[in-house]
Amino acid sequence: VTATGPGDRSGSVRSRWQNAQLALLLEVTGTPKPGNVDRHRDHDDLLFEQFVAGAVGAAPALARAPAPSVGTCFERAVAGMSAQRGGNTQFGALLAVVPLLYAAHRGERGRLDPGAARAVVDATTVADAVAFYRAFEHVDVAVDDPPEGMEDLDVRRGGDAVPAVHERGLTFAGLMEQSAPADGVAAELVSGCPRTFRTADRIVEGLGSVTDCAARAYLEALAAEVDTFVRTKHDRETAEEVRRRAAAAAEGAEDPGTLAAEFVERGINPGTTADIVAGGLFVALERGLEV
Amino acid sequence: VTATGPGDRSGSVRSRWQNAQLALLLEVTGTPKPGNVDRHRDHDDLLFEQFVAGAVGAAPALARAPAPSVGTCFERAVAGMSAQRGGNTQFGALLAVVPLLYAAHRGERGRLDPGAARAVVDATTVADAVAFYRAFEHVDVAVDDPPEGMEDLDVRRGGDAVPAVHERGLTFAGLMEQSAPADGVAAELVSGCPRTFRTADRIVEGLGSVTDCAARAYLEALAAEVDTFVRTKHDRETAEEVRRRAAAAAEGAEDPGTLAAEFVERGINPGTTADIVAGGLFVALERGLEV
Repeated sequence: VTATGPGDRSGSVRSRWQNAQLALLLEVTGTPKPGNVDRHRDHDDLLFEQFVAGAVGAAPALARAPAPSVGTCFERAVAGMSAQRGGNTQFGALLAVVPLLYAAHRGERGRLDPGAARAVVDATTVADAVAFYRAFEHVDVAVDDPPEGMEDLDVRRGGDAVPAVHERGLTFAGLMEQSAPADGVAAELVSGCPRTFRTADRIVEGLGSVTDCAARAYLEALAAEVDTFVRTKHDRETAEEVRRRAAAAAEGAEDPGTLAAEFVERGINPGTTADIVAGGLFVALERGLEV
Repeated sequence: VTATGPGDRSGSVRSRWQNAQLALLLEVTGTPKPGNVDRHRDHDDLLFEQFVAGAVGAAPALARAPAPSVGTCFERAVAGMSAQRGGNTQFGALLAVVPLLYAAHRGERGRLDPGAARAVVDATTVADAVAFYRAFEHVDVAVDDPPEGMEDLDVRRGGDAVPAVHERGLTFAGLMEQSAPADGVAAELVSGCPRTFRTADRIVEGLGSVTDCAARAYLEALAAEVDTFVRTKHDRETAEEVRRRAAAAAEGAEDPGTLAAEFVERGINPGTTADIVAGGLFVALERGLEV
């Protein structure tokens, strides 16, 4: 049975957690998104359908928000997300979205703002940081070496780092402060998510389908600032090249589809920018964006 | 943050309702699926992203299964599904999947079989039929005129048909029996879903990604029997032509991509076959298919 007319939408509005899940799904659907998996581009070892399964797997944890704590929600969402064969599909996207989901729960529907996002992060505890470390046990995540003197807090140690977290009294907010210089999502979380809210505005203002708007917002965000994941996985020069060429594509001077093919071939995937777009989609949906 | 290795899947297995939601999402993702929306093909007034939103909207109703009754679950899932601008995205797919979801709840995990599917439908009541009628109030669905003497039971009357349903003591199973000659999903439901289980087997046996297997299973199912939705919307001749050309595509004698473009242009969308594939994906996932 297939469409013959628009739905009446009677009696049914998506809840906050559904908007969070939908944001994950719409993010990976948008195309072209040079370097990342999208609905037109599988990577060899990471398929579009695995991102779909990741978003389905994360749902029960998202649905329990705002209980338990934001850190535990994140850890459980990552555990659920990892129940597919692709590995890490949405660790960063969940890190971008889950605090915003908690922020949305603090206020009336449709009123999500940077202050609420900041307040959620500021209120985090050592237990939230511990949960964040445990999330690394569910899936391999590419991160940089920790700064000197912080080896005991290397996130890749997972649960083994927990005694050090307790000893130092490190909160999730404190951890994000430490990570902000190296990780664009952490930088967002400690500053009220300015790029995320800007991306949401761009998506809401855009013309065409939601996922076309999201893909354009991705390109603009990639053109505006270097992707920290590319910088971590490759180097500063590559990240700057990616930013410059995204700017060219956003201005029409380079074809985004060709750029996508080249980035995939060179193993360049600007995941942090995609994570921020996932956050932006959640904000846009919470503010009433229709799909 | 993007993949560096496979997830450990520790402590996380999808629940039955998550498999139901994932089945809806994987069904629309599979490509090429001549005539229907897939991840490479939007229709003018019906977008891939609206199917994604439909699957997200249906989730809360699916998550409450096996309470309340199967009819109410279906009606609420349809209401949730319709909270997007495309109209009817998954009415038929939900009709195929929801009774199977209830069947899955009757037994141990991984043990879903045709007998359980049949038992769920056999046990339905007049209240389930009433809920089915109410589901038509949420979205426009293309259906045939009812047989002579049954005008008061026209599903397009929605809630207005409820007194007639009560008067005749019509159960959901009885309604599906009446609809079986005209509708392939109803025919499945009253016969233990033979095509659905066959499709599940084909998907599980297939090589490649899950959605590639699902797209092949769609083509084979379309080649095996005429699509009742095409017969309803067009005519018997068109439905037979679609079957014949799907058989040619399945055998490699015709290019499925070209066929897809032609079907879309002619407004031919074999929705019933897609609905059966959604059911088959759910069965395959319940039986342990990994994504």
